Parts: sequence; structure tokens; C-alpha cells
Amino acid sequence: MIHQATVQIRTAGRGTYSIDLAVRGVLAKSGLVRGVVHLFVQHTSCSLIITENADPDVRHDLETLAADWAPDGDPRYRHDLEGPDDMAAHARSVITHSSFSIPFSEGQMLLGTWQGLYLWEHRRTGHLRSLVITVMGDHQ
Amino acid sequence: MIHQATVQIRTAGRGTYSIDLAVRGVLAKSGLVRGVVHLFVQHTSCSLIITENADPDVRHDLETLAADWAPDGDPRYRHDLEGPDDMAAHARSVITHSSFSIPFSEGQMLLGTWQGLYLWEHRRTGHLRSLVITVMGDHQ
Amino acid sequence: MIHQATVQIRTAGRGTYSIDLAVRGVLAKSGLVRGVVHLFVQHTSCSLIITENADPDVRHDLETLAADWAPDGDPRYRHDLEGPDDMAAHARSVITHSSFSIPFSEGQMLLGTWQGLYLWEHRRTGHLRSLVITVMGDHQ
Repeated sequence: MIHQATVQIRTAGRGTYSIDLAVRGVLAKSGLVRGVVHLFVQHTSCSLIITENADPDVRHDLETLAADWAPDGDPRYRHDLEGPDDMAAHARSVITHSSFSIPFSEGQMLLGTWQGLYLWEHRRTGHLRSLVITVMGDHQ
Repeated sequence: MIHQATVQIRTAGRGTYSIDLAVRGVLAKSGLVRGVVHLFVQHTSCSLIITENADPDVRHDLETLAADWAPDGDPRYRHDLEGPDDMAAHARSVITHSSFSIPFSEGQMLLGTWQGLYLWEHRRTGHLRSLVITVMGDHQ
Repeated sequence: MIHQATVQIRTAGRGTYSIDLAVRGVLAKSGLVRGVVHLFVQHTSCSLIITENADPDVRHDLETLAADWAPDGDPRYRHDLEGPDDMAAHARSVITHSSFSIPFSEGQMLLGTWQGLYLWEHRRTGHLRSLVITVMGDHQ
């Protein structure tokens, strides 16, 4: 059985935004008990990650490294129509994730204790982001 | 319900190759209306990405950055049996994707306006690449 | 139909550990013949990759590059509670994979000849890692 919903996430610019509650809400509504929840962002300048949920410094340090992986305003970029963070955002999206799935059982996601789900906004300005959540599973 | 097909993509060496049409074709044949389409490349020296589909400069700039992430002919590489692009190709595959899924509804992939699906060939010479497409979903 | 199992993998510190046999075992037990096998690690300091399975130098070279992508003990890190490899491990997890799926047909994973499935331990010391395997597919 398939249950599908789209959730809007408003970001306030570059940074990570917890989406655990949004995903849990759709999973609960599905009424399914065992399977996987699939997440998909409909954008190429933000992405999805699973990372440590206890110490916000982890997500701060990820931003530090992301500036090594894909710096803003690299003079080699040809694509800079929307500013110095435009191409950096596309590249950060490509090396992280537009899509992944989490298993669930007894209606609960099987996340480890320290795993949090985040939408990572890579643009400097705020955006409204669409997250498609598809629950696939059995009723018992 | 599951519908599965393998599609062959002929590449002409390093670069990105649009696979939207191939995926849409298999999805249409499945007759399924709601679920996810799963993509999988059966190789370790090419990969799959979702990125901006309007400006080819984006994919040019991704190549520029990929040369930072995993340079050809790095003197530290031990694995160079098939040339300077051999290990670079494996590494670029690992930090992008061998596999991901896209949700669909009413028989159409729920891609954002600017999202395109690409096979990224990381070897300098052309190859014949196998893409396994698995559609999982409901008939109504 | 859904079949789900959790497998424990004991690591001996940083490095790659083949999980092909563990995944094949769960797939065989499922009795399903066609669909996808979904893998998920319940941790933020190890990850999953698909890479070349013939020459161990490939995985050696991946470690070399990973030290460029996310060095141990970078002085810019704020998160270092568990030592110099703590933040490096989280970052390496984020740019590789906590989760992916492999298609199967006639009860066999559709892996390419050179594709191997690995758990990549990013911490220097050994850990017990939980891998959730979810088989989704049809009986015929």
C-alpha cells in the first residue's frame, strides 16, 4: 500500500531544518505499520541529510566543510545567474541527497538514537521548499 | 505491484546524459499510478544525479568541482590499472549516487520544474551502461 | 509484501566491511522474487557505499580521499567531544549514504559484476553497527 503527501518547509536561508515531525505526521496518517518512508525534495539547491541530532555544532561544522566542497563565488563557475551561492547550492545538493528512505516498524521510524532528518537549505535567502513523502508498507 | 526493466545507455565519455525520457518510458509501460520509481546503475565508475536541467553550465561546473573532489591521476592513488581516470571515477561514484528513487502520482514523476535526471559518466572513454528501473506502486 | 530484519555488524575501526552475504541472507529468507532491497544504518558515524569489489586498493584510495573531504582534527571543528575522528566521521557519513536500495529479480540482487556492498566505519575504534534490511517485492 502507498500513502503520499507533500509538505511545505519554509526556510530562512542557509542552514539545516529538522523535518522529523513532518515525516512522523505523514507516517502516522498512513496507518501503515511496516515498510519504508521515502523522502524527496523537488529542488536542486537544497537537499536532505541524516545526521547527529544532539549537538548543533555538528551542523555548524558541516557548513564549514561544505564551503570547502563547493565554495560560494568560485571564480571558475560559469553558472552564477542568481549570485555567488547559486552554483555552490547545486553542487552541495548533488553530493548530499535529494532523496532517501527510512525503514519503519510498528508504525515508528527505525532511526538510531542520534539520527535526525534535516532539510539543508543551501541558498543564502529563505525559500519555500516542497518535500514529497511516500509511505510504502503493509497494514500488519 | 512491481514493474522492472533494464535500459542501456551508451555514453561518449565523461559528462552527463539525460535519462528522463528513458525513465518516463518505463513508468508509462508499468501502468502504475502512484508510488516511487527506483533507479540503479550496475557500475562503479558512473553514477546518477538529479540537478538543474535548464543551464548546461551547471553540469560543466559540476565537472570542475569533481576534479577537486577526486582528481584524475592523483599520485597517491594505488588503483590505476585502467588509467588516471580509473580511481577518480570510483570516488566520484561513491560521493554521488548509484541509486535513488523518485515519487510519482497519476502516472507522472513528481519532479520539480528544474530537476533533471542524469547518468554521469566518469570515465574518459565511452561505455555502455545498464540502468535498472524498478517501479513500485498501486494501480489506483 | 515487506520482509524486514536487523543485522549487527562488528567493526574493528576505520575501514570497509563487506555486507553482501548479510544482505543476500535476508533476501533469501524473504522468499520474495522481484523488487528492491533497502539498506539503512542506524548511525551517523558510519555509512554505506557500493564500490569496486575486486581490488582492495580502491577502498584504500577512498580512505585517502576521505581525509581530503573531511580531515580528522580540523582545527575549525567545534564538535570534537569524542576525539579528532568524531566530526570527520559525521561528515563522511553525510557525503556518502545512510541508506540505499538494490533491485532484485528471480530472488537475486541485480548487482553489476564489480559492485560490492560495504559498511564504511569512519570511527578509529571498533563499533557494533545495526543495519536494517527491508525487502519489498512480489512473490512471483
